[in-house]
Amino acid sequence: MARKIGVMGMGNVGATVAHIIVAQGLADTLVLFDEIEKKVTADTLDFQDAASLLPTHTEIINGQIEDMKDCDVIISAIGQIKKLNQSNTVERTAELKYNALSIKTISEKLKTSGFNGILIVITNPNDVIADLYQKYSGLSKEKIFGTGTYLDTSRMKRHVGKALNVDPRSIQGYVLGEHGNSQFTAWSTVRIMGRPFTEIAQEKQIDLNKLDQDTRFGGGQVFVGKGYTNYAIATAATNLMQIVLSDARSEVICSHYNKKLDTYISSPAIIGRHGIEATFDLPLTTTEIDQFEKSAAIIKASTKDYA
Amino acid sequence: MARKIGVMGMGNVGATVAHIIVAQGLADTLVLFDEIEKKVTADTLDFQDAASLLPTHTEIINGQIEDMKDCDVIISAIGQIKKLNQSNTVERTAELKYNALSIKTISEKLKTSGFNGILIVITNPNDVIADLYQKYSGLSKEKIFGTGTYLDTSRMKRHVGKALNVDPRSIQGYVLGEHGNSQFTAWSTVRIMGRPFTEIAQEKQIDLNKLDQDTRFGGGQVFVGKGYTNYAIATAATNLMQIVLSDARSEVICSHYNKKLDTYISSPAIIGRHGIEATFDLPLTTTEIDQFEKSAAIIKASTKDYA
Amino acid sequence: MARKIGVMGMGNVGATVAHIIVAQGLADTLVLFDEIEKKVTADTLDFQDAASLLPTHTEIINGQIEDMKDCDVIISAIGQIKKLNQSNTVERTAELKYNALSIKTISEKLKTSGFNGILIVITNPNDVIADLYQKYSGLSKEKIFGTGTYLDTSRMKRHVGKALNVDPRSIQGYVLGEHGNSQFTAWSTVRIMGRPFTEIAQEKQIDLNKLDQDTRFGGGQVFVGKGYTNYAIATAATNLMQIVLSDARSEVICSHYNKKLDTYISSPAIIGRHGIEATFDLPLTTTEIDQFEKSAAIIKASTKDYA
Amino acid sequence: MARKIGVMGMGNVGATVAHIIVAQGLADTLVLFDEIEKKVTADTLDFQDAASLLPTHTEIINGQIEDMKDCDVIISAIGQIKKLNQSNTVERTAELKYNALSIKTISEKLKTSGFNGILIVITNPNDVIADLYQKYSGLSKEKIFGTGTYLDTSRMKRHVGKALNVDPRSIQGYVLGEHGNSQFTAWSTVRIMGRPFTEIAQEKQIDLNKLDQDTRFGGGQVFVGKGYTNYAIATAATNLMQIVLSDARSEVICSHYNKKLDTYISSPAIIGRHGIEATFDLPLTTTEIDQFEKSAAIIKASTKDYA
Repeated sequence: MARKIGVMGMGNVGATVAHIIVAQGLADTLVLFDEIEKKVTADTLDFQDAASLLPTHTEIINGQIEDMKDCDVIISAIGQIKKLNQSNTVERTAELKYNALSIKTISEKLKTSGFNGILIVITNPNDVIADLYQKYSGLSKEKIFGTGTYLDTSRMKRHVGKALNVDPRSIQGYVLGEHGNSQFTAWSTVRIMGRPFTEIAQEKQIDLNKLDQDTRFGGGQVFVGKGYTNYAIATAATNLMQIVLSDARSEVICSHYNKKLDTYISSPAIIGRHGIEATFDLPLTTTEIDQFEKSAAIIKASTKDYA
Repeated sequence: MARKIGVMGMGNVGATVAHIIVAQGLADTLVLFDEIEKKVTADTLDFQDAASLLPTHTEIINGQIEDMKDCDVIISAIGQIKKLNQSNTVERTAELKYNALSIKTISEKLKTSGFNGILIVITNPNDVIADLYQKYSGLSKEKIFGTGTYLDTSRMKRHVGKALNVDPRSIQGYVLGEHGNSQFTAWSTVRIMGRPFTEIAQEKQIDLNKLDQDTRFGGGQVFVGKGYTNYAIATAATNLMQIVLSDARSEVICSHYNKKLDTYISSPAIIGRHGIEATFDLPLTTTEIDQFEKSAAIIKASTKDYA
Repeated sequence: MARKIGVMGMGNVGATVAHIIVAQGLADTLVLFDEIEKKVTADTLDFQDAASLLPTHTEIINGQIEDMKDCDVIISAIGQIKKLNQSNTVERTAELKYNALSIKTISEKLKTSGFNGILIVITNPNDVIADLYQKYSGLSKEKIFGTGTYLDTSRMKRHVGKALNVDPRSIQGYVLGEHGNSQFTAWSTVRIMGRPFTEIAQEKQIDLNKLDQDTRFGGGQVFVGKGYTNYAIATAATNLMQIVLSDARSEVICSHYNKKLDTYISSPAIIGRHGIEATFDLPLTTTEIDQFEKSAAIIKASTKDYA
Repeated sequence: MARKIGVMGMGNVGATVAHIIVAQGLADTLVLFDEIEKKVTADTLDFQDAASLLPTHTEIINGQIEDMKDCDVIISAIGQIKKLNQSNTVERTAELKYNALSIKTISEKLKTSGFNGILIVITNPNDVIADLYQKYSGLSKEKIFGTGTYLDTSRMKRHVGKALNVDPRSIQGYVLGEHGNSQFTAWSTVRIMGRPFTEIAQEKQIDLNKLDQDTRFGGGQVFVGKGYTNYAIATAATNLMQIVLSDARSEVICSHYNKKLDTYISSPAIIGRHGIEATFDLPLTTTEIDQFEKSAAIIKASTKDYA
């Protein structure tokens, strides 16, 4: 009956995820966990203080990983509290080391608890961490996926929409690959007004490379301004969660296991109650296929030291 | 046509207010302002990055006070970025000094701009700042009110609800006076299941003083854990905003001008499109009247140095 | 995981209930049933036609009572398709006879199916039918309740709100007794602005009897205009459903089993996941107690022929 | 400030449009009109009876066309109360005659009132009536558009989605032409999983003609079952309304003026606060272009007798 959701990590991202869930009544029971107890206690109280002000009711539990064993969906926002400068390689490596360690412990606890729901990963580096969660927890590959380039795709749509003065929601297409520097906009997939965007871009002399760069470094711009990004990524994660809960079988881009390349990496998939319900190959250009495979190689190189 | 809203101050509270508005489609145009440009730029981008992920569309403008001149409602969350320890008197005085100065400049800009909408004040010390906004801006008293003890009242309802294992939304009653230490739960107004809560409390041996203390220091608990409170207060502010926009003429507690005591202070009022649409006297006990007047005196003492 | 809801009866009320659920994403799986197959088929298709236009996904099943066996909540809107003139005694009796027969068959199917969720009854005469459902199905008394005077209470709030030019949501109080002609506004429970409404009514020379009559015959006015009432009653039913699903433990008025009077009748109760979580006595005037008992007697007289 | 919306016609469609607006708080002021006074009075009361049960407040006015003069958007659902068998040519002609007359009077009243907002037409035959509204009212062509094949497109997505077991929201593409028998699915525009659906249909041996037929006669199936269609069409209309109110500049299919063919007909356009903000040509096959032009000719033939 109850939609029971867990959020692990009450940094800026995890807390915003929890806030969206509470504010919009997306769960009936919400279990929050953070290693830093005083932060999760503060957020729990803050949410509960709003209880009489909201149209919906959510039971909020300041809990442990074990309390999430019967959750329908768990969202991992672990590690987001570290304010790393994400474009710096040294720091990214440090972030991976730190987060890999954290999620190893968590994965073991999840395994012991008997958790058998869906795990949506926001924790970065997203593709690597999603892969490690799968390896550490032993959950089936379908049950774990990452937000990946869902957010980057939304950024690309914003930039394309701005260039054309059109609602970003009216643009189709994908940013593929790593949620990181090797990602790329697969321009052959981007369409608007029934036409390939590349055609329109040529007519209107829109610089695709610039749009791609703006997309790739969109997070960096936000990061520079406040030391983290939270609103758009939390929206992406809660969208994925709602698709799972309602078994919508929607086509969405996310980081999931790619059998051919043997790694987690972002491409569109069909998502539903069982997680990844179906995968498929996009018809890409040879250049795009090459970019995708190179991006996969970069992810795999990061993963292998922790697998 | 468009619901145009301004949010001044992109600290933890202002940004959360803006997020609720964007995430739930509560405005058509949203103007954001903060003195720290890089923060408001980062939040604006972060909100815009979510544009393709949301069911509603909001135009978000990273603007100036002048851009808010034709807003229906402006919400002041100025000063919330200062992480003051609010129970410390020295620091509270410093906060007032700092915020009074900030809002003086803003009020003058609002006045010059010709703004004639509703101003909802979250900035603390809430009653004093709401009063100063009115004095500085020259807007009519009906058009400016503060969140006041709306949040504290919600906290009280949470505590009473918890004591009785009942939905806080099912509890009626008010925390009156200053949004600060001299506030008090007016127990004579608190009712549940058609009965005065005081009767039930006596039957069940519930300690009213403890509940009142828990309410008063509820914000402090959250503050200790994360250095600010944001979710419940932002919910309170956006609720007030929606009541104004829809001209609901709802009874809500907020800090508004009390003619008899000649100060801003929290008691329930009828709120609608013109702001404070009607005021009335609650039938309080003599002790409660005394507490209310003492609280008013404390607020007035703070206000007078800046008026 | 999934919130599974059943709606029995696709007349004007049941279809509106189903529409609210689909339009607002209040269920993950929705099972619809009506004896008139072509109507439920048409509504199912109509809802499904909107699937690409909605922000949420709901699986809609054109099913049988048996398909509802694992529903969290079933809403009975059976019989609403009969356009009876409800103020006419002869027709009301005919309605009871017809509906009692329908729900007997349904109750047996529910029993056989092993259904063990919550049953919310809209079918009229509401108190009698709720009681008969309980007797016929053998479900525990806590698990079955009717919308009762929840709607009549909302009507009373509208009339009081209109008299005072205040949001009906700001008014507390109850219409008690039968969802029918013997209902009455318990004026001693009606409060606004921290005061008994009776005091304000006296000051403002508001005629309480007229308000009570307007409330009692509010449904009739709507009925005369379109031959049925659907929007407000469907809103009431879906509100109750959401309280159950989220286990909110809210105080709401509904028709539930009154032990002392040994009948279903409307008074406030605490509602949650188990249905009626707690009951309590309102402190009424002796006149009101008398009216309540008389109303109970009228309900019981109707019930006994079918029990 | 206020979002003021008018709904003309309180038949099954208009009342459902009004209900969605009230239930979801999509307007601040809602003016309802129907020639049959008792129906609009009944619906107004029914909506108002729900006021204390909803999280949002809407002022509902049982009014006249003149009361809509300052509405941001008016939705025409006039004529939907006639339960015509829409696949019957004789009856369709009768419907046009009847509705053309009704909207002539209304258009004159709108013109006299000085209305200068956006008019969204649901009334059938949709393309003809939208065109006549424009001619009769003298409003600019951008300001008037019809729901057209927005609903038929949603039906097509449902059928394609069902064939592939995928969320209809994940399908792109359009049903073009008349909202009527000469409409057609432009298969060259239909895409899913980054590929033309025609390719997938060939692989999976899906019969496109059957899907197209199912789409065209989808309304008929609903009609047979209940004598009208209301939920999906009302959802379509309120979506268009929200796009206008929020100035989203979304790409949506609707019936709008096609300069080349000099008629109202459905193809995608960019919609925003000014109505039709931009139009464009879809890259269609020659067969599709032919079908589109033939459909336009059919619409024009109907229009000319009333223009």
